[in-house]
Amino acid sequence: MTAGESLRAIRERKPLVHQITNYVVMNETANATLALGALPVMAHAAEEVEEMVGLAAALVLNIGTLSSHWIDAMLAAGWAANRRDVPVVLDPVGAGATEFRTDTARRILEEVDVAVLRGNAGEVATLVGVAAEVRGVESASVGADPAELACEAARSLGLVASVTGPVDHVSDGERVAAVANGDPMLATITGTGCMSSAMTGCFLAVAASAFDAAVEALVAFGAAGEDAAREARGPGSFHVNLYDALAALDPETLDARARVS
Amino acid sequence: MTAGESLRAIRERKPLVHQITNYVVMNETANATLALGALPVMAHAAEEVEEMVGLAAALVLNIGTLSSHWIDAMLAAGWAANRRDVPVVLDPVGAGATEFRTDTARRILEEVDVAVLRGNAGEVATLVGVAAEVRGVESASVGADPAELACEAARSLGLVASVTGPVDHVSDGERVAAVANGDPMLATITGTGCMSSAMTGCFLAVAASAFDAAVEALVAFGAAGEDAAREARGPGSFHVNLYDALAALDPETLDARARVS
Amino acid sequence: MTAGESLRAIRERKPLVHQITNYVVMNETANATLALGALPVMAHAAEEVEEMVGLAAALVLNIGTLSSHWIDAMLAAGWAANRRDVPVVLDPVGAGATEFRTDTARRILEEVDVAVLRGNAGEVATLVGVAAEVRGVESASVGADPAELACEAARSLGLVASVTGPVDHVSDGERVAAVANGDPMLATITGTGCMSSAMTGCFLAVAASAFDAAVEALVAFGAAGEDAAREARGPGSFHVNLYDALAALDPETLDARARVS
Repeated sequence: MTAGESLRAIRERKPLVHQITNYVVMNETANATLALGALPVMAHAAEEVEEMVGLAAALVLNIGTLSSHWIDAMLAAGWAANRRDVPVVLDPVGAGATEFRTDTARRILEEVDVAVLRGNAGEVATLVGVAAEVRGVESASVGADPAELACEAARSLGLVASVTGPVDHVSDGERVAAVANGDPMLATITGTGCMSSAMTGCFLAVAASAFDAAVEALVAFGAAGEDAAREARGPGSFHVNLYDALAALDPETLDARARVS
Repeated sequence: MTAGESLRAIRERKPLVHQITNYVVMNETANATLALGALPVMAHAAEEVEEMVGLAAALVLNIGTLSSHWIDAMLAAGWAANRRDVPVVLDPVGAGATEFRTDTARRILEEVDVAVLRGNAGEVATLVGVAAEVRGVESASVGADPAELACEAARSLGLVASVTGPVDHVSDGERVAAVANGDPMLATITGTGCMSSAMTGCFLAVAASAFDAAVEALVAFGAAGEDAAREARGPGSFHVNLYDALAALDPETLDARARVS
Repeated sequence: MTAGESLRAIRERKPLVHQITNYVVMNETANATLALGALPVMAHAAEEVEEMVGLAAALVLNIGTLSSHWIDAMLAAGWAANRRDVPVVLDPVGAGATEFRTDTARRILEEVDVAVLRGNAGEVATLVGVAAEVRGVESASVGADPAELACEAARSLGLVASVTGPVDHVSDGERVAAVANGDPMLATITGTGCMSSAMTGCFLAVAASAFDAAVEALVAFGAAGEDAAREARGPGSFHVNLYDALAALDPETLDARARVS
């Protein structure tokens, strides 16, 4: 399947994507999921996460505003997803910024079978033990080449690594795809990384493989970012345009727009 | 009173509407409340919910992102509201999707005197024991006729049932009003159901009866949805336009726009 | 330094501003911080707040949706900030509305060395023992003259008091600055008070003094509000324009736009 075919499948099947995510972006990732064509559901209570995962076609775990009982819920949801073959995305927001985040991301990676790890270079570098300077959740500088970093993360962690940045790199440990879709304005609002993780969950629900899903999600989200930037007057109007652009993405033309190498 | 008269009263009296709602839509329901002309306040701590309810003209309980200590707060707030004759709206988000949500909604209905139950057909059907297929929080298919469902829910639960969908149905067990205001774009963003519950709280603070409040709120919110859709390019711009449209609603013309039968 | 010089410094240094704030406005204050040119980070877990403060150039505490374990986190973060000379802003949202909020704001003021207290007249009056009628979090009427209130708060609490309203008043107990920048539309959306506290945190990270930071933040935020109002059709489009306007603020012209007396 291609990005266009997967997008068409998302709109036809409307997969339910269960998201246990941070307070800052819950509305944003829910609306991005709806705009793409899938159905979001946010649920974090220990009492219901297993049952909710059973209804879902993908699970997205995001550690952006952690507290201890949320970690328990994420693990329980992750285990339930693994038992039911529901693919899991992990967004290790802020790994490297504090030990608590680094340790939590590592714990989830150890205890849950994660299909796709979607993070920025600093977060992913931290999780594979490469030196990185992480400032909070929005900025990091990493010495490593991002393509090599994605490949190393995929191999050492046994998953698909999706490292986003000016150019995104996705690797399953064998192949590395560079996705050049996107626009610098995506970095001017909070939550676009989290949204790309949610998009990855949507594509995981329909795509042929986790590698394909990760690449296709970044092509689609990046293309929507390009469209949104066109008439944006700043970050506020870009943010609004981004939902309009996701909803307007055309499965017919998406593959021709993919800038993947 | 009519929808137009109630809207005028909301803008003159600026009733405080206490909302214990979910993380996904807190900003959205607060801004919709302000745009309509009332004052929102979000407070969920056990230490303060009773005191806050004492300042409020209506209480809105929404179970969209539950956890156990929030349930305690909702019950405490509901009891305090009942003691002070502050009308209560319940939005049973996701009832039917998980047992935890179904049980919590039932528990609130049993222990608190709810004036208006505002939900979609799947949620309300679940709570009256009618078979429904509920997928997460955004989608459900129900066999029952929605007018009959509203009437049965009102009778069996002893409240006003406000069942929203392509056409909304409100019943107090005797009468059933069908409200055809609205636009399909309302289903393209998350939180519009929650917003309609918040609007119901605003109208409860001023309207002649709970039945009138529920109908008038859906007329006003639906009319704003119609206005917002007119120049929307997608879900992002529709979302922005919706607040502009709520603030621009004209009490003089609102009654003529009502499509109630 | 002037407001324009501080704004230039914010954009050059991109200070990390740690915010422990309420659920309603987390996305809004994060995006306002980014739009201005700084980096936001939201973190509230007891396990990480001290470490996160150590990375930050300012800490913003906002009690808008309190619960008890958040108070512990705010205190721990505040103490860590004091130990490291990271300046602290307190936004006492809803102080005066409930005892829980009043007591919590007082406790933070007693146990943490707060550089700037940023609130509306009702909240600040409550904290210095002046009679005020506070309705929820959006509205209050206070008998006291706001300039005198700011001065008294600054003196009695030993900090810079930043009292916002139609005209804002900032005092360090000696001087009082009146800032007339802004637009009435800022009162039509929720969270603009919280955003002005976040902006104060950004300016604290670079300005010459807490007094200067508080004044400069209100000049910049007020000027952005003026720009945002120009083409707004209502609260929704105003909200979007506000982020565009913050990002477009020009350090070259900002000082000439300041309406400070």
